[in-house]
Amino acid sequence: MAFSFELLATNPSGARAGRIHTPHGVIDTPIFMPVGTQGTVKAMTSDELKGVGAQIILANTYHLFLRPGAEIIAQLGGLHRFMNWDRPILTDSGGYQVFSLGKLCKITEEGALFQSHIDGSRRFLSPEDAIRVQETLGSDIMMQLDECPPGDAPLQHVTSAMALSLRWAERCKKARHPEKTDRALFGIMQGGMHEQLRRESAAGLVDSGFDGYAIGGLSVGESRTTMLEVLSYAPGLLPAERPRYLMGVGKPQDIVDAVGCGVDMFDCVLPTRNARNGQLFTRTGPFNIKRNENREDPNPVDPFCRCETCRHYSRAYLRHLYINREILGMRLMTLHNLHYYLDLAKAMRTAIFQGTFASFQKKFHDALAGATPEY
Amino acid sequence: MAFSFELLATNPSGARAGRIHTPHGVIDTPIFMPVGTQGTVKAMTSDELKGVGAQIILANTYHLFLRPGAEIIAQLGGLHRFMNWDRPILTDSGGYQVFSLGKLCKITEEGALFQSHIDGSRRFLSPEDAIRVQETLGSDIMMQLDECPPGDAPLQHVTSAMALSLRWAERCKKARHPEKTDRALFGIMQGGMHEQLRRESAAGLVDSGFDGYAIGGLSVGESRTTMLEVLSYAPGLLPAERPRYLMGVGKPQDIVDAVGCGVDMFDCVLPTRNARNGQLFTRTGPFNIKRNENREDPNPVDPFCRCETCRHYSRAYLRHLYINREILGMRLMTLHNLHYYLDLAKAMRTAIFQGTFASFQKKFHDALAGATPEY
Repeated sequence: MAFSFELLATNPSGARAGRIHTPHGVIDTPIFMPVGTQGTVKAMTSDELKGVGAQIILANTYHLFLRPGAEIIAQLGGLHRFMNWDRPILTDSGGYQVFSLGKLCKITEEGALFQSHIDGSRRFLSPEDAIRVQETLGSDIMMQLDECPPGDAPLQHVTSAMALSLRWAERCKKARHPEKTDRALFGIMQGGMHEQLRRESAAGLVDSGFDGYAIGGLSVGESRTTMLEVLSYAPGLLPAERPRYLMGVGKPQDIVDAVGCGVDMFDCVLPTRNARNGQLFTRTGPFNIKRNENREDPNPVDPFCRCETCRHYSRAYLRHLYINREILGMRLMTLHNLHYYLDLAKAMRTAIFQGTFASFQKKFHDALAGATPEY
Repeated sequence: MAFSFELLATNPSGARAGRIHTPHGVIDTPIFMPVGTQGTVKAMTSDELKGVGAQIILANTYHLFLRPGAEIIAQLGGLHRFMNWDRPILTDSGGYQVFSLGKLCKITEEGALFQSHIDGSRRFLSPEDAIRVQETLGSDIMMQLDECPPGDAPLQHVTSAMALSLRWAERCKKARHPEKTDRALFGIMQGGMHEQLRRESAAGLVDSGFDGYAIGGLSVGESRTTMLEVLSYAPGLLPAERPRYLMGVGKPQDIVDAVGCGVDMFDCVLPTRNARNGQLFTRTGPFNIKRNENREDPNPVDPFCRCETCRHYSRAYLRHLYINREILGMRLMTLHNLHYYLDLAKAMRTAIFQGTFASFQKKFHDALAGATPEY
């Protein structure tokens, strides 16, 4: 099935519920996408991802491009087959990781010249390369190559990065394989914290026309207030009939507020990475498994949670596994955190259909602030 | 249900099939017991262990004694509840790990004085302590405290260790809680590679009477030939109507040959530890996932294997995960290796019931030697 988006419900606040159709099945929005950096959502099997409600995962093009290489993955039947995941995959362009190399990366009009973090070899990534690699991997949703400046970048840099990203968007669009039309390509809005630049970016992308639109350049070090300020207008600059994806966000409270602003899709390493560091997400805030007070605690991390971890294992056992650096501990805590994020997405969707998102949002923040035991 | 053993079939070669009843269910023998050192069979959940056919696991008393401590586990509902495993658990006595501390351990008639490898604290383990800790953990099958000398120990040491182990066996038996009679206690035969000492050890244990008998002091550095020599007579020194457990063995070929000598139970860290190091067991021998030739290989590790790993993942993907030190790689390879070991146990049991164990054993060795593609 070709890519399409149905907008099913919109609340007065702007929160939306929808459905994305892809060659590998549907995605109910709002949705959180677990991150699978190296062809694996760390510590999880595909069955476990499905068990916690994952409908789509994000794969990092940069890592797979360097190792094992997109061509090898294609020979092995594509990324879905390679990692045994038969649901949709969104791939990033690889740009974000390349630019994170700092001095090891030089950006020109043509693309990005960089040194591999693995073997130091010199590599080049152009907008055309980014599309070719993503098509070779077999991605369902491809992202354009863009330049994402740091949160404290001067206005001149933010402006030039926005303009360059627009030109690269056009090149990405042209680089698409004419027969792979069932795969989607998303444009990425840049412009930092500057409304005028965001408007220019959005107008340029929409004028060109993409299957979906991402809001880039947030969660790059700015304050929560600043991010929410941008989110108060940025989603509205994008067409209602296309999915909106806020890249790299974020904490549960940021996701809830962004949904309230009309965003549909999210990705973040927080639930998986923090799990491996012993931090668990709960409706009343983060829970640190390391704490000594968990040593003899027979209770689950969250007594209201229905995940496999909370149903079968105590805080004391999880702490024991964490202290001993046991793999099972990382597994069980990752499972809980992904369940939390995907359950949150499902709860938001239900609230939107019921027309009660604003009330949900308030209860969510109250619970987080400790005002009520549940949301 | 109280502990008992039914001997169901014996082949001319001496290979036996039986059934052990425990408070946590039955165990079909011959059986391999995955090792769960720190309250977890590394990288596996209980459901996965059941999925590969695990009927009983081994837990290391030493590690749990030090951290988190047997009393804490008891408060949390016992080891089964703690680790969410509702099938039988065999616990070792803790002695083997304590003696492995070398200079940090001093053995007297009373017991073993040692320093914790975690915090250097001075601890003491007597035969009575070993039983108390194992009962506190809630073990189904407890092991006596014994002294297991190294493979190159002089005759005098082997003799004294055998005699001390007999005296400790008696003390362990007396130390049992009078109301916990549904739990089994196994005696451990020592005597190194010396038939006369093995005979004395077996006679002493059998005279005292235990629920089952282990053959200790093998797999301690001796050659395979030497081990098989001891196994040619040692199991026969033990009563046919009790289960026989060969401790710490071993490679698949050693297990097959030991079953041929009349052994029923085995434990070893090889399948789990080697999996994490990229070594996979197959019917034609060990398979090293690291090798460059696996880089683009779309085939499963073993095309005849029905484990989840071989059914869904290529050699290329497993190599990719291994090279990147991904947790999923350790998981999938552990799953395969445990499936291999437990499938082997099942195949041996079937052959014994069919009266064809000798032929199975020959085919197994032929396949390993590369003479035939299958056994």
